[in-house]
Amino acid sequence: MDRTQLMTSISADWESFSKLEIAEKLPYFTRNEKIYDCLFAQQLDRGRLEHLFRTADALRKMTKTREGMNIANSLLSHKRAMLYFVQPSTRTFLSFLNACHILGIKTSEIRDTTTSSEVKGETPEDAVRTFSSYVDMIIMRHPAPGFVEKTAWLMNRTDRPVPIINGGSGKDQHPTQALLDAYTLYKSFDGEIDGKTIAMVGDLKRGRTVRSLSYLMKNYKGVKLAFVSPKQFRMENDILEFLRRHNIPFIETEDFGSVMGEADAIYMTRIQDEHDKAGESKAVDYSPFYFKKEHLGAIKKDCVILHPLPRRFEIDPAVDEDRRAIYWRQERNGMWVRAALMAHIFGVDSAIAHE
Amino acid sequence: MDRTQLMTSISADWESFSKLEIAEKLPYFTRNEKIYDCLFAQQLDRGRLEHLFRTADALRKMTKTREGMNIANSLLSHKRAMLYFVQPSTRTFLSFLNACHILGIKTSEIRDTTTSSEVKGETPEDAVRTFSSYVDMIIMRHPAPGFVEKTAWLMNRTDRPVPIINGGSGKDQHPTQALLDAYTLYKSFDGEIDGKTIAMVGDLKRGRTVRSLSYLMKNYKGVKLAFVSPKQFRMENDILEFLRRHNIPFIETEDFGSVMGEADAIYMTRIQDEHDKAGESKAVDYSPFYFKKEHLGAIKKDCVILHPLPRRFEIDPAVDEDRRAIYWRQERNGMWVRAALMAHIFGVDSAIAHE
Amino acid sequence: MDRTQLMTSISADWESFSKLEIAEKLPYFTRNEKIYDCLFAQQLDRGRLEHLFRTADALRKMTKTREGMNIANSLLSHKRAMLYFVQPSTRTFLSFLNACHILGIKTSEIRDTTTSSEVKGETPEDAVRTFSSYVDMIIMRHPAPGFVEKTAWLMNRTDRPVPIINGGSGKDQHPTQALLDAYTLYKSFDGEIDGKTIAMVGDLKRGRTVRSLSYLMKNYKGVKLAFVSPKQFRMENDILEFLRRHNIPFIETEDFGSVMGEADAIYMTRIQDEHDKAGESKAVDYSPFYFKKEHLGAIKKDCVILHPLPRRFEIDPAVDEDRRAIYWRQERNGMWVRAALMAHIFGVDSAIAHE
Repeated sequence: MDRTQLMTSISADWESFSKLEIAEKLPYFTRNEKIYDCLFAQQLDRGRLEHLFRTADALRKMTKTREGMNIANSLLSHKRAMLYFVQPSTRTFLSFLNACHILGIKTSEIRDTTTSSEVKGETPEDAVRTFSSYVDMIIMRHPAPGFVEKTAWLMNRTDRPVPIINGGSGKDQHPTQALLDAYTLYKSFDGEIDGKTIAMVGDLKRGRTVRSLSYLMKNYKGVKLAFVSPKQFRMENDILEFLRRHNIPFIETEDFGSVMGEADAIYMTRIQDEHDKAGESKAVDYSPFYFKKEHLGAIKKDCVILHPLPRRFEIDPAVDEDRRAIYWRQERNGMWVRAALMAHIFGVDSAIAHE
Repeated sequence: MDRTQLMTSISADWESFSKLEIAEKLPYFTRNEKIYDCLFAQQLDRGRLEHLFRTADALRKMTKTREGMNIANSLLSHKRAMLYFVQPSTRTFLSFLNACHILGIKTSEIRDTTTSSEVKGETPEDAVRTFSSYVDMIIMRHPAPGFVEKTAWLMNRTDRPVPIINGGSGKDQHPTQALLDAYTLYKSFDGEIDGKTIAMVGDLKRGRTVRSLSYLMKNYKGVKLAFVSPKQFRMENDILEFLRRHNIPFIETEDFGSVMGEADAIYMTRIQDEHDKAGESKAVDYSPFYFKKEHLGAIKKDCVILHPLPRRFEIDPAVDEDRRAIYWRQERNGMWVRAALMAHIFGVDSAIAHE
Repeated sequence: MDRTQLMTSISADWESFSKLEIAEKLPYFTRNEKIYDCLFAQQLDRGRLEHLFRTADALRKMTKTREGMNIANSLLSHKRAMLYFVQPSTRTFLSFLNACHILGIKTSEIRDTTTSSEVKGETPEDAVRTFSSYVDMIIMRHPAPGFVEKTAWLMNRTDRPVPIINGGSGKDQHPTQALLDAYTLYKSFDGEIDGKTIAMVGDLKRGRTVRSLSYLMKNYKGVKLAFVSPKQFRMENDILEFLRRHNIPFIETEDFGSVMGEADAIYMTRIQDEHDKAGESKAVDYSPFYFKKEHLGAIKKDCVILHPLPRRFEIDPAVDEDRRAIYWRQERNGMWVRAALMAHIFGVDSAIAHE
């Protein structure tokens, strides 16, 4: 079925559409073989990932000079974006905002629905459609699972759709986080993710980032995964099944020390106690899943340490000064690869010269 | 009396000035025969309206190309505006903000007086004067009737006045809403508002938009108005008197169906229950004043349906897909005609080529 | 000790570093003999002050034409700044924001830590480092004394430092307020602060601005100070000692009238009752420290009246219309001299032609 058929058939009814498999939905959010709405990590196949990574690299190189920055600033200076972030998230918000600024996109913000006319009894769908009428793109973070997708679906049915980028939707999807994590691996390994061993450590059950990153690994060859977590917070079965289906080898362990020496990358995560139902995090000794200063001697000399941030105690601040601790660079990578994504959506990626 | 005389006489005393008729005040807010402070719908006579409409049209045409958008972006890139919105209003705020961005105006925001130094015991007048010292224009929305006007009056007495645009002042004035509504009619009727029949439906008593729009109709010839409302929320007498005085024919009815087939435009409004004094809205059956999907068959084939938004139940969302439902376009019209107004105030409207 | 030595020795330990004398710390926040981090009024010696004043003057002159404003707007259009203001301060915030806009700097804001990921258990230091990763400069206002300095110290130890400007740090330092006050005197006296008599009036004990301004007076020759305050709120001894050490003559009095006729500048201040511990402000009759309309006849014909704003009752609004009341101009001076400071930090001050 091509896009037009999709739009005229399934798309007429959200209930039916929402129940489709993600793969079936993708054509609806794609135009001219480019991402139009960026909603799911599943939209990021290897070709697209590498294209976005090379675009991000080229953009960074280009902007090292003031002249290049001025060119970047003009690429999308004729566009306006809305950052609709009704779920608290300073770092993702700022990352997207500054990515917009790099490309010259002008920005408006909604960060709190209580000042919004939603208080006058308007539906969220009407509010979003109104806001969309002023801008050329919406970057959206919303606590309700599926809300961002529904917005994109709705917008595509109007006579003036604008691209929607998912900046985090409930617990289900946060595709640009996956994108930045993969980009960080790509840069750390000089473009060669194939064949690497990646340890993911901590609360794997409730961490959205490790789930998405595991998923993205199907794009690479010979990657091995090590899941290190307390038994209460093991990686969920749906991901393990997915890995088996794609022949991606993995191990599960509670013994961090046993995998430290093997890993090319260690992806640390925070305990997600905001998702506790009845204080279950308190019953867990999380300290075996901390990365301490003394561990620096136990890991490979080129092993990189990632963290989606914010952190609490799971990485000792003394580790920050080691050159293998790259979590702040990871933050910056997010800004650049988000800028690359926006350049792609608006078709100005070709104006960013690749090497 | 010319402006200078006005300034040196009446203007020295706010109490006296505020009691003048609006027509008497207008010279004080006008410079070089252009609007300087935009405070009242009464400033919008037919000549000005049409000039602003043509400017808005030209600006939209110009910005359809990237080159044209870049020119628009540079028109007022040397100016800075303050959006002082201490009354919640996301849509009007965003409309003005993006209008600024189209013209390249740099923006600052005040959206909450509690973070302001007003908490340190400063008067609102001092606060506004301080804020004005950083910028070239203030767009102001304020809950207190007359506050925006008083600000403009005060600023004009200083040695560094800046233009003030009223973005909604208490229940009395919201001139740019009237401007956008009239612009929407203008565009819908290919520039010919004369002779049209316009139905206004809903809570006419407390809706600011229908009051202002009725007022503006004096600028056109042969317009007929139909006021459709529950008897509790009929249009107020001051407007009816105004219409009689200007020989604008109108009817009042509770029977929506009786006027549907005649109207060239139907302006729907929400029940304004936030203005209830004692829950009076609950006593009213508002459903006869809903526009339902089945009504689409009863209206003229070129009849347009407007709504100032936000809506609740008074227009069935199924109506949205009909090409005669133009309320989202109405929103966009607001952004463009506000940009035209700012271009006019700063005298760059001449740089926007009219056809 | 040069900067590199400082960084490798003392800088490794915040506890030791924080206890140094300010003079000893300065090299750490200086690069290429320019201010890198602007943290202390002590960084503003006479040479720097006059350079910044001349830069501010040149920038204002340059931006009087639209062409000049466009040049100014492009000076730092390749830079992004973060305004991290977690202590309420609308006027300082707006002053910096618009200073950024004048130079074309793109801005992000943090104004409320409750929407920040700090709620997820992150340390403030981590939060700031994350935010710094998106931008080229941080302008910071924070309620905790020393926090801004610690941030600058931390950033300088990373491989990607960005300049930090102190926008007010607890009760201790607010260097750009001192800068703008001195700039206002400079402009009022046609560049000649030497030899002038300056009265400071009001709550001198708890007013940060009068303390910093007194300090800066060591840069000028033959200045005389008159401190006029209720006996409960006299200038603190540390400042009086400082003045004695630098042979700056001063008097202290409760009799405002006795100094009015002598002063070349009168710096009025508000009672700082937000710093009350037990309602002590209520026990003070502050009215002898008001500047009233009738005082206009008692002061020199060229005496200027300053106030850091916001004011309450200490200056009668009727005084505002006198040309010697320059507190609104003082506000504007703040914006311009802050822009000059940023131009200096980024080394584009040379592109702003001095007369």
